[in-house]
Amino acid sequence: MKKDFTRYFYPNSEKVYVSGKLHDIRVAMRKVNLTDTVNIIDGKRVVRHNDPVYLYDTSGAFTDPDVEIDLDKGLPRMREAWVAARNDTEQLPEISSEYGRQRQADKSLDAIRFKHLHLPRRAKEGKEITQMYYARQGIITPEMEYVAIRENLQNEQLGIASHITPEFVRNEVACGRAIIPANINHPEAEPMIIGRNFAVKLNTNIGNSALSSGIEEEVDKAVWSCYWGGDTLMDLSTGDHIHETREWIIRNCPVPMGTVPIYQALEKVNGIAEDLTWEIYRDTLIEQCEQGVDYFTIHAGVLKAHAELVGERLTGIVSRGGSIMTKWCVSHNAENFLYTHFDEICEIVKRYDVALSLGDGMRSGSIHDANDRSQFLELDVLGELTEKAWAHNVQVIIEGPGHVPMQKIKENMERQLTSCHEAPFYTLGPLTTDIAPGYDHITSAIGAAQIAWLGTAMICYVTPKEHLGLPDREDVRNGVIAYKIAAHAADIAKGYPGATVRDDALSKARFEFRWKDQFNLSLDPERALAYYKESSVNDGEYCTMCGPNFCAMRISRSLKDCIK
Amino acid sequence: MKKDFTRYFYPNSEKVYVSGKLHDIRVAMRKVNLTDTVNIIDGKRVVRHNDPVYLYDTSGAFTDPDVEIDLDKGLPRMREAWVAARNDTEQLPEISSEYGRQRQADKSLDAIRFKHLHLPRRAKEGKEITQMYYARQGIITPEMEYVAIRENLQNEQLGIASHITPEFVRNEVACGRAIIPANINHPEAEPMIIGRNFAVKLNTNIGNSALSSGIEEEVDKAVWSCYWGGDTLMDLSTGDHIHETREWIIRNCPVPMGTVPIYQALEKVNGIAEDLTWEIYRDTLIEQCEQGVDYFTIHAGVLKAHAELVGERLTGIVSRGGSIMTKWCVSHNAENFLYTHFDEICEIVKRYDVALSLGDGMRSGSIHDANDRSQFLELDVLGELTEKAWAHNVQVIIEGPGHVPMQKIKENMERQLTSCHEAPFYTLGPLTTDIAPGYDHITSAIGAAQIAWLGTAMICYVTPKEHLGLPDREDVRNGVIAYKIAAHAADIAKGYPGATVRDDALSKARFEFRWKDQFNLSLDPERALAYYKESSVNDGEYCTMCGPNFCAMRISRSLKDCIK
Repeated sequence: MKKDFTRYFYPNSEKVYVSGKLHDIRVAMRKVNLTDTVNIIDGKRVVRHNDPVYLYDTSGAFTDPDVEIDLDKGLPRMREAWVAARNDTEQLPEISSEYGRQRQADKSLDAIRFKHLHLPRRAKEGKEITQMYYARQGIITPEMEYVAIRENLQNEQLGIASHITPEFVRNEVACGRAIIPANINHPEAEPMIIGRNFAVKLNTNIGNSALSSGIEEEVDKAVWSCYWGGDTLMDLSTGDHIHETREWIIRNCPVPMGTVPIYQALEKVNGIAEDLTWEIYRDTLIEQCEQGVDYFTIHAGVLKAHAELVGERLTGIVSRGGSIMTKWCVSHNAENFLYTHFDEICEIVKRYDVALSLGDGMRSGSIHDANDRSQFLELDVLGELTEKAWAHNVQVIIEGPGHVPMQKIKENMERQLTSCHEAPFYTLGPLTTDIAPGYDHITSAIGAAQIAWLGTAMICYVTPKEHLGLPDREDVRNGVIAYKIAAHAADIAKGYPGATVRDDALSKARFEFRWKDQFNLSLDPERALAYYKESSVNDGEYCTMCGPNFCAMRISRSLKDCIK
Repeated sequence: MKKDFTRYFYPNSEKVYVSGKLHDIRVAMRKVNLTDTVNIIDGKRVVRHNDPVYLYDTSGAFTDPDVEIDLDKGLPRMREAWVAARNDTEQLPEISSEYGRQRQADKSLDAIRFKHLHLPRRAKEGKEITQMYYARQGIITPEMEYVAIRENLQNEQLGIASHITPEFVRNEVACGRAIIPANINHPEAEPMIIGRNFAVKLNTNIGNSALSSGIEEEVDKAVWSCYWGGDTLMDLSTGDHIHETREWIIRNCPVPMGTVPIYQALEKVNGIAEDLTWEIYRDTLIEQCEQGVDYFTIHAGVLKAHAELVGERLTGIVSRGGSIMTKWCVSHNAENFLYTHFDEICEIVKRYDVALSLGDGMRSGSIHDANDRSQFLELDVLGELTEKAWAHNVQVIIEGPGHVPMQKIKENMERQLTSCHEAPFYTLGPLTTDIAPGYDHITSAIGAAQIAWLGTAMICYVTPKEHLGLPDREDVRNGVIAYKIAAHAADIAKGYPGATVRDDALSKARFEFRWKDQFNLSLDPERALAYYKESSVNDGEYCTMCGPNFCAMRISRSLKDCIK
């Protein structure tokens, strides 16, 4: 890995850590320090202090100047001690998957392989180790306390009442309304929670395809997406060296990471869907569980009987996993092996606490196909599978569309809650119109804000390159910011405790012409500053938008003085 | 004006004209021609024709290769004959405003003055000439038939049932639920309608400030904004040569143009709000009426009594007009002269058929201030003024916020409909969070889509530069596209007849890998193509997003063949 890795730090911000009360944990937060408000009143300079603002921080140790970063070694393994202390898992003498062992033995991969591999852990025989299991036993894990503090810190500072306590977290996880994706083999990740009674989360997708992008670039995109605010990360690589790329990303990823194992399984059979087998897939699951993937997208709800409904659609199947599994069903005239082996899948993943993200193979790829029979039939199957997974104490989220016009979003959300017994919904957008390729971060942010307000727990970003190509660095940034906006707008609309603190602090700074505070509190300080500077005005009481005589805020402030 | 003006044309599109049935009019439309669908079925090449798609076209004669464009002469004066034929207006021997005459006499302005000035028209003494007046008399004007055809063409081609007939248009205008902004002195504009029973419209703001931007640049931005889909245009110039800049823009503007006359009035008193007088303002109105401004933003609802409510707010008054008038009220301890002279304002504008856009001086500038007393009290005043204007047969729209979190958007819309007797609502955004300067086209497109769905007739774009500086060309484009998306998403959600035709045609092209058709049907063909090309794949059945083996659509299409 290149040694000139650039670290980015948030302007005028500190990394702070808050200690747990139940457990020996340190919860990372970003503290934005503000300048004072200075007014001249009756000829005197009156200075008022502005409290710092605490922000939820997804960037991990990369933004802590006290932590040395070495991509070759990976991030600090914070949760390793927590997991070990539970004494219900064991370190394996070697990795279990056949493919993983092959890759390890392959000398030609030495050059690109992550250097400091750790042996995987797995539940001891007969032990249950998922967060859901603990929660149901009434146990508040360090992970649960961590997320309670993380979701709540700003409120504690401000004395804002909040329902979010460690016990509340435990209860939400116990009944399946929320998940904490936390593979025991990804101890580098900082615990986070996905559920509709918590702040809305956003997922970013990265990953190469056969046509593009190397390992360095993918690791860089992962760190970059966390810097801008991605809460989880999916590695959707389909090109070469999937196994090695994933190892690099996980070891340097401070947020939970998900994958779609069928992509790698398909690579193993050279892209021929018909050649897929349960055995290959099973080995892939184990391989990835032991690397530390935190959640798997599994297209187990795509049934053979649904294949013929595709003919009713304008844009067929647009989920890659959905199309692969449908093709498999049709060509074998057999039921989807992910469905028939679902209990075995649960048996495997529960030993590592990998959560399942039940894939929506039938998500709509156009406004025309939204909320159709294919989608809702699949949703019912996903509900059935949810109950199966819960019987294994496996944590579950449900994936959703896709392209959905605004007037159909509510029905989609309500059907999901009913069909899937309130398991968290995780949607791609939805895109509210099909006519804007190149701007689908916007068509979909419009839908994402609404569905998140209605109860979706996590929204999967869409970048400007959707439908056109793989996102580059700048696309990732644009996609993440668009989705931070949607998620935050939804938190405000939901009345999430403390959600408006950042808005209010920023607006106050804006009104007081504390430009730097305004920028430092914004989602993208760098861009706000750059746009401001483009207009080449010195720091003063106006911008080029209105010029000095027409600045409403300036007049309005002077007014406050004369009325008072 | 520079001679190297670049004309832009839509790819694979023709300008077509549809004739009226009641009047001798030609309604301009854009026709996008599509390629055939080609399938190989049982070894045979099967070709299916795809019908062209007709799109609402705001770009004017600039995109008609058969029309010669000369910015120095201005656009063809299509409506001149319609206005003259009504025989209720007269051409004036000279312009009426004192200021206008001064500017005309000023030799130093010769170099920058528009060359081919026309003498203004005005209603004959005792004649009523507004579209609202005609509508109430049961008269269907050419303007009304024009907009009926314009809103409806695609449906006629496709046999889609639609409620939009010339008589329906007349009725909506008669009862004030819709307006056709059409100053008799702006015959270059193509008639369009703003009302919640029609397609959602979008306004763009351009204009220089004291710190930036010349005439050429502003004309270029005006044409550019129409090219991307702006339905109306506001010239918010506050810098030098406001009068001359406006003349250039109007003569070359194919869409209705609005202004905020108080900005120019303030320039006339060197930026000192206290020095404003009704007489200066009155002369400014007449000056602009005779140049051809189609609608005026008038901050007549900002009352003296409301000034003290500003103290309750986090961000005071953020409307420039609102802050100016409040300052005037407070310093004179007198009622807003726009309110006290409102009947006279109506008497002036009705003689040119200038519509009034009742400004929201108290729109919220932050989430914190949304839906507060100041705003709703002003809204009630605007309702009162609406009835006054209607008594003069003056067309009215109502301006709205601002910054409003999602959960408060519905209340805002409902209050407006009730308070303002269903006069069309015209909102800036609203921005659904304050935390994303640099991305406020997105924070606000989220709000705009929702409020438009709920009944807002026109949404005013916000560019990425909002709060930071004046938009440049690229910002205008990004702002317009974001708002085209919001407006279109709302049209779909409202069930507007034919709204999904473009989506369906584009999605069909996408599914059939007719890349060029997909791009040509998109809101920004150039960008979609550029993003696609960046990924450097030849035209084929996949993009770099998934690569050849993982293209869901490709698998899905092959599936359709094997199931069938």
